[in-house]
Order: sequence, then structure tokens, then C-alpha cells
Amino acid sequence: MRLDTDACRSRFAAARHAYLATADADGVPQLVPVTFALVEGASSATDGAAADAGAGAPAGDELVVAVDHKPKTTRDLKRLRNIAENPHVAFLVDRYDDDWAHLWWVRADGVATVEHDGEPRAAALDALAARYPQYRERRPDGPLIRVRVTRWSGWAHG
Amino acid sequence: MRLDTDACRSRFAAARHAYLATADADGVPQLVPVTFALVEGASSATDGAAADAGAGAPAGDELVVAVDHKPKTTRDLKRLRNIAENPHVAFLVDRYDDDWAHLWWVRADGVATVEHDGEPRAAALDALAARYPQYRERRPDGPLIRVRVTRWSGWAHG
Repeated sequence: MRLDTDACRSRFAAARHAYLATADADGVPQLVPVTFALVEGASSATDGAAADAGAGAPAGDELVVAVDHKPKTTRDLKRLRNIAENPHVAFLVDRYDDDWAHLWWVRADGVATVEHDGEPRAAALDALAARYPQYRERRPDGPLIRVRVTRWSGWAHG
Repeated sequence: MRLDTDACRSRFAAARHAYLATADADGVPQLVPVTFALVEGASSATDGAAADAGAGAPAGDELVVAVDHKPKTTRDLKRLRNIAENPHVAFLVDRYDDDWAHLWWVRADGVATVEHDGEPRAAALDALAARYPQYRERRPDGPLIRVRVTRWSGWAHG
């Protein structure tokens, strides 16, 4: 059965990690596991920037992902280069079970930007630190990926 | 630490499910959980078709994914339309743990085709049925996605 927007949001928000798909300018996809926080976009109340969001997207839902410290060589990340070329991204969370009656997944489609500094980035890092003790011990110092969710979709065996 | 090709293959092959990223002609990514089997491509021994595979890709590795029965409306799947427009895909398997010392992931980048009938499709369905009892109970009757792996990559906390 299809999951409604509220069910998508609550299942996604409760997940501990997600998968992020980006694609380069030629449409070659890339896929990585990420930690994330679901936040309410600061812009939505003030400038209506989310008014063009697709059906099923509450105005202002944003997903934020930090780039953390481990391998230094990954600071120039393919995911960041892809977003610079093509801002369309997709996130997925799911539950797999060998009993397929328990399967479900939720996807968030959206448009990404990258922030290197500033107050919105700092607030997003606070939200990530609130979810992950590792980020409280060591605050990420790399770029922040912010995704405005344009569509929630999901499915659960039912 | 980076995982070598053999470690990538063995970890991927042992996983029970994976994530599949496709992208449409405009580069908009789509992301779904899938069941899969890792098989050796029939073509590799006979025509050297995998000779142009990227570094780290053993010739002949293929990933196969069935389209099964549940929601009838999804037979015309976005993932199939995307592959028709743009054959580049990525698969991911991973382990998440709240203790990040146990994280690992493996990605397979590749090029996809869709098979609607024929002996190679039947053999791939046999491989899927060997892994999943649900497919033994009810053999998938939809299209088969076959992906020639062009590159394995992976990372484990180390």
C-alpha cells in the first residue's frame, strides 16, 4: 500500500541512516549511505520558496547531510561535484526483512544545495549533533548538503 | 579503508538486498530497494564484451533484478523507463550500526539492459529463485534488469 505524506515523514525521520543518490551532468548516478536530519526549512515561512513543491511535499521539509572528517581524501567528494553539476537528488530509507510482509520504504526526492559556512549550516549541524553522539563528540567541519524535499513517496506491504 | 575488488564482491554477494539508483534522461535520480543475484555473465567468456570494464571490475560480473507481481500498477516502472533513457545505474549494499566502527558499504556501478524473455532471463530467474524462497513459490513474470558491473568500490571503517 502507498504511504501517505505523514507516514512517509515519520518513518523517514525515525530512521538512523539513509541512502543518497546523486547524478552527474551526464546522468551517471552515484549512491552512498548517509546520516541525516530532517528539519523545517527556514525559508518556507518567510519567502514561500517551497510553494512550487510537488504534490505530497509539505512546504519546508529539508534534509541535511554533513560531510565529516574520515578519509581526508574524500573532502572533494563525488557527491558534491555531482550536486554542483545537477542538483536533483533522491534519498531512501527502508526496512528489509526476509519475511517480505514486513517490507517498507520511503523516498524523498528533492533539490540540493551545498553550504560551506553561515548560520543555517550551523543550525543544521546542531540538528545533526542532536541525533548522533559522534557529531557531538566531533562536530563536522566540512560542507553541508541541504535538500529541499519536493516529493515524499513510500510503500509498505499491506 | 578501501575494500579491494574481491572483498567488495563477497560482501555484496552475501547481502540479502540492495539499493538501485537509476536516472532519467534529465539526470533526475530514482532510488529503490531491490532483491538481486550476482551472476557471471554468459557473454564474458565468449565475446570479451566486458573487456572495456573499468578498473576493479572482474570481467563478467552481472547483477540481475526481477520485477515481481505486487502492485500491478508498477509493471510500468519508473526504473525501467529510466534505464531505457539512460542505462547507467548504481547498486549499493551496506551495514549500518550506531557504532560507526562497524560501518561498511560496497557499490557496484554498471550499465543496465532489460530482458523480457529468452534463455538468459530464465537462467537469471533461476539464480534469483535459488536465493529467495518467495521467488521459488512464485516465479517473477515481469521484465528482468541485467547490469554489467563496470566498477566495484567499497569502504569499511578500519
